[in-house]
Amino acid sequence: MKNMQETAKLLRGIIPPMVTPLRSQKEIDPDGLARLVEHILAGGVHGLFVLGTTGEGPYLPSALRADLVRRVCRQVNRRVPVFVGITDTVFSESVALAHIAAECGADAVVTASPYYLPLGQEELIGYVDRLVSQVPLPVVLYNIPLCTKIRIEPQTVRRLGELPGVIGIKDSSADMLYFQKIKRLFSENPDFKILMGTEELLAESLLLGADGGVCGGANLVPRLYVDLYDAAASSDIRKVRQLHQLVMKLSTAVYTVGQSSSGIFRGIKCALSILGICSDLAAEPFCSFSEPQREKIREFLNEWRNVYPPGDGR
Amino acid sequence: MKNMQETAKLLRGIIPPMVTPLRSQKEIDPDGLARLVEHILAGGVHGLFVLGTTGEGPYLPSALRADLVRRVCRQVNRRVPVFVGITDTVFSESVALAHIAAECGADAVVTASPYYLPLGQEELIGYVDRLVSQVPLPVVLYNIPLCTKIRIEPQTVRRLGELPGVIGIKDSSADMLYFQKIKRLFSENPDFKILMGTEELLAESLLLGADGGVCGGANLVPRLYVDLYDAAASSDIRKVRQLHQLVMKLSTAVYTVGQSSSGIFRGIKCALSILGICSDLAAEPFCSFSEPQREKIREFLNEWRNVYPPGDGR
Amino acid sequence: MKNMQETAKLLRGIIPPMVTPLRSQKEIDPDGLARLVEHILAGGVHGLFVLGTTGEGPYLPSALRADLVRRVCRQVNRRVPVFVGITDTVFSESVALAHIAAECGADAVVTASPYYLPLGQEELIGYVDRLVSQVPLPVVLYNIPLCTKIRIEPQTVRRLGELPGVIGIKDSSADMLYFQKIKRLFSENPDFKILMGTEELLAESLLLGADGGVCGGANLVPRLYVDLYDAAASSDIRKVRQLHQLVMKLSTAVYTVGQSSSGIFRGIKCALSILGICSDLAAEPFCSFSEPQREKIREFLNEWRNVYPPGDGR
Amino acid sequence: MKNMQETAKLLRGIIPPMVTPLRSQKEIDPDGLARLVEHILAGGVHGLFVLGTTGEGPYLPSALRADLVRRVCRQVNRRVPVFVGITDTVFSESVALAHIAAECGADAVVTASPYYLPLGQEELIGYVDRLVSQVPLPVVLYNIPLCTKIRIEPQTVRRLGELPGVIGIKDSSADMLYFQKIKRLFSENPDFKILMGTEELLAESLLLGADGGVCGGANLVPRLYVDLYDAAASSDIRKVRQLHQLVMKLSTAVYTVGQSSSGIFRGIKCALSILGICSDLAAEPFCSFSEPQREKIREFLNEWRNVYPPGDGR
Repeated sequence: MKNMQETAKLLRGIIPPMVTPLRSQKEIDPDGLARLVEHILAGGVHGLFVLGTTGEGPYLPSALRADLVRRVCRQVNRRVPVFVGITDTVFSESVALAHIAAECGADAVVTASPYYLPLGQEELIGYVDRLVSQVPLPVVLYNIPLCTKIRIEPQTVRRLGELPGVIGIKDSSADMLYFQKIKRLFSENPDFKILMGTEELLAESLLLGADGGVCGGANLVPRLYVDLYDAAASSDIRKVRQLHQLVMKLSTAVYTVGQSSSGIFRGIKCALSILGICSDLAAEPFCSFSEPQREKIREFLNEWRNVYPPGDGR
Repeated sequence: MKNMQETAKLLRGIIPPMVTPLRSQKEIDPDGLARLVEHILAGGVHGLFVLGTTGEGPYLPSALRADLVRRVCRQVNRRVPVFVGITDTVFSESVALAHIAAECGADAVVTASPYYLPLGQEELIGYVDRLVSQVPLPVVLYNIPLCTKIRIEPQTVRRLGELPGVIGIKDSSADMLYFQKIKRLFSENPDFKILMGTEELLAESLLLGADGGVCGGANLVPRLYVDLYDAAASSDIRKVRQLHQLVMKLSTAVYTVGQSSSGIFRGIKCALSILGICSDLAAEPFCSFSEPQREKIREFLNEWRNVYPPGDGR
Repeated sequence: MKNMQETAKLLRGIIPPMVTPLRSQKEIDPDGLARLVEHILAGGVHGLFVLGTTGEGPYLPSALRADLVRRVCRQVNRRVPVFVGITDTVFSESVALAHIAAECGADAVVTASPYYLPLGQEELIGYVDRLVSQVPLPVVLYNIPLCTKIRIEPQTVRRLGELPGVIGIKDSSADMLYFQKIKRLFSENPDFKILMGTEELLAESLLLGADGGVCGGANLVPRLYVDLYDAAASSDIRKVRQLHQLVMKLSTAVYTVGQSSSGIFRGIKCALSILGICSDLAAEPFCSFSEPQREKIREFLNEWRNVYPPGDGR
Repeated sequence: MKNMQETAKLLRGIIPPMVTPLRSQKEIDPDGLARLVEHILAGGVHGLFVLGTTGEGPYLPSALRADLVRRVCRQVNRRVPVFVGITDTVFSESVALAHIAAECGADAVVTASPYYLPLGQEELIGYVDRLVSQVPLPVVLYNIPLCTKIRIEPQTVRRLGELPGVIGIKDSSADMLYFQKIKRLFSENPDFKILMGTEELLAESLLLGADGGVCGGANLVPRLYVDLYDAAASSDIRKVRQLHQLVMKLSTAVYTVGQSSSGIFRGIKCALSILGICSDLAAEPFCSFSEPQREKIREFLNEWRNVYPPGDGR
């Protein structure tokens, strides 16, 4: 295992939360997966995050999760670091998946809090503490109150950030006040990485010092987000604003067609299937887009062709 | 398989949500389990519900869940109906557990909505529809927005109630306006059963026509809840009020010691371990009570001894 | 001024929150007001509450509020106790209105917390403390988090209940767990009165010991609520259930036509105007029902004629 | 009256929400007010907003509000535009205050939705429509769901933005996703101004195109916010980040000492009184800081002296 500081350095830039191409409820779509990985990597991304919310992680059977991790690590073949979501309500499932991830050569695991009952902050601290001690990889925290009902309070993040093994946080709360509090708490500790998980807030968080972003749209147009990251890194405000408008355009067009929170990954999968990259089958209890919904995505893709330079990662 | 109407008739009265006695994170405490089942049945309850929220269902490994269902069905041996919680984010896990439940002779399964992302109502309807078609037992709906983030809207319950196979609902929303809307929607359909899942609201809901209650405290003092049910059934208001005060006393004393929502089952398990019935080990990520917390439960049990007639189910 | 205990005794039974008949945004409809007061008193109610939420209190100009209090006190002429809502964000407005209420012979004032910023509990305690010291009448607390954003926490109610001058609480939170906690906190202090402000929960709260109810529907059919109160007082469960069904029927029919929270009093005013009792003009920013909405209320009133015995307070 | 487009042009830059210096609950502190206005204007601000949330507008008696508007307009004497908050639950109060503002030479009025019951969006549209027709000044919308319980939905803002007379919006929702939706809806209409009302989000919103900010801290250190505005206007990212850190420092130090939402203006008033500018008396139901709280503010001010160049607007 790499040492923690080394891994923490890998936790930066654009790290797309990959959707999971499925052939059936129990099987990966292996060809789609291979194409998708290559499509994303061709966009110049800095890492790959599998089995997150966008990856429908909590809805996939254990065996399928393990299979996915193995295939992705093999396909990526260390070109970029791989981060594996292990969030589950069953502790031993999380630990087992972390061991598989380590064996396959993944670089770190990512965990939200167990998500059925709302956990108290002390319970959350105890949980991460025990997890870190049983897991053979660095751990990235995942703040996503929409799904877990609780946020990881800033003071909790501070305490967890002191645990050896905890290297950063992905914040998907969509709350910039929260993000800034976290940023402030770790202003003296640049080894603790802070990633923005809400792509509509990527531009501003990068401008204010985020280490990177986990952007669902980078499944489709990885280059756009990488360009945005680079523009922010070089303080090119004009370009940041312009690319941010494209991020908003994609978000508005693709994520709102399905009308519940699953609309994000169902929209992405629909677009990927239209592009011939992979199947749009969603994990139960979710459904693929209907034909009218699919038509809207098709229209967006047609229009988009003229918006963002062809060959740029699509 | 019994026919649905027959089973629906079994969905009434006091049906305790059994806590799950554990020897380790991966093993049932078999002797504790046997004692607990007998302790509860001795209180005259009308059924038994395993692997609900109080039973820490979503936190237990699959194999343990299956083992529990087998042991409970064997121990109960058809003295009362057994209801099995199959709520999971992984659809195939729920279906597999339902098949095991059917093989073991359980009477129905209970399902909340998959609980990571907040589901849309149409997604929920599709989910239950597909579940019912793949599951060999009648299905009871479980409304618990605290854990699933969404409530099963009254109009959704109405539509799901028309599915053959859906026999009733357990409402743990603690929202009496919701309960009354459901009650009103099924006023012409007494075959659809409505159970109260919040024991502090048991008295009033029984007085207004609930078919029964799923009460965590009935793990400890089953007779109390059965007596309350009987008092309500015979419109003995004075007795209902008096027993309701005892329910409130127990709730106030036992459920508030642990200060997050897990405090309910951790409090019950602590009390059961003091009574020598089973271990107080909680499933990860939860912890047993600390010694000062345990002392408070001990004090309550000492006081309680004089409050509710000995021999009455404790 | 009567002593507090004497007044507390008046805080019981059915105390309708009277709607405010308007001729214009700045003027009372005096004839409508006189007819409405007589209509309500004819139903046998135990008191009258003016300038509450249903009375659009916070939306009415000061002069109009004062005029209303004067007219109502004169019309009622001590046949029943009169309670005056003084909730305002401007402290001196509340105090001034309380003095007018006292001069006119009202029996007590009712206050929610000032309702712009969410108040902290300590701020709320300080507020009530200072209010009580400057107000010449007993004070009834008013818990309505829908409007004030905060609930008066049970421990706050306990502390405020110790102030001489605070005689009870009207709870419009629609949260029976809250109601029961308050009930439990004052179980040894029957002089502190607890009224249910959500009429759909009136039946059950009376059965569990509420001292009375503040029911908007009693503007229309006062006798129904009085009969329900009497049935509960005599533990006639069958009758309670039957009348509760009528309360639900009225609530479902009248309060849901307007689709925001103002729909309750706009629905009541619409029905009263159809019955020829008073104008349906609502205070800014609210609007009277449209003709299609009015038609629905008309249909309800036609149907209702056969449901509840004529002469019974309509 | 100036024409609307002309006024809209004035709605930009740093427009501090002035606290209201009080001598008593019924009287302005006139000397403190004069000093405060000069202190703020010396910082180079672009406008002044009185009677907002920070100005405790909804808690002040009508006469005092009118007195304040008169004095401020006289003191400012057209050096910068003056914006007057008219939010009230009583429609005629809002209209009357708008007329006074017009007579005194104020430039526009600012209105949140009436704030007792949660208004429906259609009700809100009707309200603003009627207000605009009765008010002699341009209207700025004010989105502050913390206080009004509802947000002005993006589609509502779009519709209201079409009303002649509505010139912009101040967004205090602290929700950057909302802010960006509004920004996107008016991307073709630069005459509709969008101001950020949450100062911790000022830096990023200016970088993404906000027209200005309404920052409570600019009562204390107006120059800081003006410098931040200028740095953003000239795309000086490094300076933006550095000044943003100071904004966060001030916010963290001053606004969290009082532990409810009133802590912001009570903290500002406390600091202003230590600086000898005006009294720290708060409007009922709020209290001045206690001595230990005041000590914390004193410490902050001592430390701050070395942080931000003296003479820079303090």
